[in-house]
Amino acid sequence: MIPPSRRSEAVAPFMVMDVMSAAAARERSGLDVVHMEVGQPSAGAPRPVIEAAQKALALGRVPYTEALGLPALRERIALDYRTRYGVTVPPERVIVTTGSSAGFLLAFMALFDAGVRVGVPQPGYPAYRNILAALGITPVPMVLRQEDRFAPTADLLQATHEAHALKGALVMSPANPSGTVIVPGALDALCRRARSLGLPLISDEIYQGLTYGAPAATALQFEPEAVIINSFSKYHCMTGWRIGWMVLPESLVRPVERLAQNFYISAPYLSQVGAAAAFDATEELEAVREGYARNRAILLDAFPGLGLGKVHPADGAFYIYSDVSALTDDAAGFCKRMLAETGIAATPGLDFDPAEGGHHIRFSFAGSEQDCRETVTRLKAWMG
Amino acid sequence: MIPPSRRSEAVAPFMVMDVMSAAAARERSGLDVVHMEVGQPSAGAPRPVIEAAQKALALGRVPYTEALGLPALRERIALDYRTRYGVTVPPERVIVTTGSSAGFLLAFMALFDAGVRVGVPQPGYPAYRNILAALGITPVPMVLRQEDRFAPTADLLQATHEAHALKGALVMSPANPSGTVIVPGALDALCRRARSLGLPLISDEIYQGLTYGAPAATALQFEPEAVIINSFSKYHCMTGWRIGWMVLPESLVRPVERLAQNFYISAPYLSQVGAAAAFDATEELEAVREGYARNRAILLDAFPGLGLGKVHPADGAFYIYSDVSALTDDAAGFCKRMLAETGIAATPGLDFDPAEGGHHIRFSFAGSEQDCRETVTRLKAWMG
Repeated sequence: MIPPSRRSEAVAPFMVMDVMSAAAARERSGLDVVHMEVGQPSAGAPRPVIEAAQKALALGRVPYTEALGLPALRERIALDYRTRYGVTVPPERVIVTTGSSAGFLLAFMALFDAGVRVGVPQPGYPAYRNILAALGITPVPMVLRQEDRFAPTADLLQATHEAHALKGALVMSPANPSGTVIVPGALDALCRRARSLGLPLISDEIYQGLTYGAPAATALQFEPEAVIINSFSKYHCMTGWRIGWMVLPESLVRPVERLAQNFYISAPYLSQVGAAAAFDATEELEAVREGYARNRAILLDAFPGLGLGKVHPADGAFYIYSDVSALTDDAAGFCKRMLAETGIAATPGLDFDPAEGGHHIRFSFAGSEQDCRETVTRLKAWMG
Repeated sequence: MIPPSRRSEAVAPFMVMDVMSAAAARERSGLDVVHMEVGQPSAGAPRPVIEAAQKALALGRVPYTEALGLPALRERIALDYRTRYGVTVPPERVIVTTGSSAGFLLAFMALFDAGVRVGVPQPGYPAYRNILAALGITPVPMVLRQEDRFAPTADLLQATHEAHALKGALVMSPANPSGTVIVPGALDALCRRARSLGLPLISDEIYQGLTYGAPAATALQFEPEAVIINSFSKYHCMTGWRIGWMVLPESLVRPVERLAQNFYISAPYLSQVGAAAAFDATEELEAVREGYARNRAILLDAFPGLGLGKVHPADGAFYIYSDVSALTDDAAGFCKRMLAETGIAATPGLDFDPAEGGHHIRFSFAGSEQDCRETVTRLKAWMG
């Protein structure tokens, strides 16, 4: 038997994927599933994206591109920073990636050597710590606090750095799973503190565009050297296309290019062509966001009556992250029973938070309004 | 300024990508380029692939898939091993990847911890050593010898292991850049020796199907626990789709699944759908291969008269790797001049071989017959 490496054993399974497998098995057996588990828009990619890909397919050429992406797409992304945020980003610093997944690998490898420590928010996207660990980098939790609306703060960054001698930190806004949006003043303060501490800051902005109050800022408004990770998966509804982007400080462009050449060759061509058209779909995408807002209201209205009312902010992204400690301290077992007995799939919190996740559950409201209503109806019957 | 990591500085640029950039710049300036530099079929993806992708696009859903890939595609790949090689592979051990690039990352991470040494053929695909180095693994060259037709042998593996205490080795057949095909008896011997030395063997078979004499064997015929890396980019003409696969020993399936969940989420959906249809395109793809055979003959006929006749085997893949020591010991400078003065883009050997590459050049014959004829005509005029 060929033994796996220690580093692969250090990577925890992604519980949401296991929930997806269990849900798929349930569906294959002929039972229905209400999919509240996966961070995937139920809307398909917008019409201009589909049409651009169809046009490219009809031409029959689907080639490699330059490792950093199609110049037209890089320029279009740069233009969006100017029009949307008033931030000037040279297209040369915009890098097209195979989803934000590739962005994380490239950012972590370009910035950090094995053996160093990097601050990551907790609760947070589990792949951060898994990718870091697999690369020999120690993720250090920056434990988010209710009194900060679960946003990372300048003081939290500094305290974590003083205790652990970080080499960098990652923040996310809007955040998964909490829905927290870091308000502009706080993001400015975080950027300044990171700079004064000499720490590179990675800003994961993949839920940008998906907010239900004030829009989220980009770290580039406050720190031109921030490493930005973004994606077409969420706001632009392009999950299975596997396409995203980074904005890099000048000093990292060539190192990332070398890494990307070797680790990816290039991002998928059809997805690059489609992504360039995604910026022409604002009306369609805003209608999708308005649907999320309705879904969010349905859940937020009903959850208190179901004992699920202790929720994180949900100011952005498309999740309700509920503290279910009043119901159980075994969220994984609870989710398993809920799937088996009601057909509702949701994600247990341990994915996002090894410390407190045992009594949290994440519900995605990226699905249909019907799914959200059905969730409320079934939960009422099941828990009542 | 944010300093890049040491590991990113350890990754050499991929010279072929720089040649591509120079060629692109030349084209933007209005001059023509004969593209002999890049390992990319000039034929587009076959008709059934395009149609399957178009059909999926028309349905408008392009979702994430399970991390290991669409079950139907995994089954189709497994079936191909049975029909083509008489090897039984359970679909559960077939893993769909985002190109062979993802296969390398996943194989290296699942098998090897930082600090170990792994044997790689020299000359060979440069990303092997770059990815290994970036992951903290030391690539040890297994220097291929003319008397072995530049194929890695059981004895070469053992000698390298005795000198360097390897933790595993990688072989490739048909090989880039040499075109060497490891004959079945030699591959069997290699597999047995690796097993007796306790070394996991990674077999890169991405040029399988592209041979001009006897077909290439798969290592699975001799070693059921070999780690196989393959791709739809070459034989199936699907480069920019970024889609490939691995076959894994049972013990590595779950570790690779965990890594894939975190590093990739899933391979691009349209590419997976297209790839499943690629097996229905044998007639079209065999016609492409016959075109390569004609291209190969054109170059092999003309190269001796041009001082480029000292070539590696070219029994498979789509490259002529020429020893140009009679002309220059600065192949990179030679290629630069050749591009500027004739418009022919080719890849200097240092990409593939830091030791002997300074006097080697790789010409790809994956382009059109016209390109190959034009190359011969222009080289005759330039060198004569």
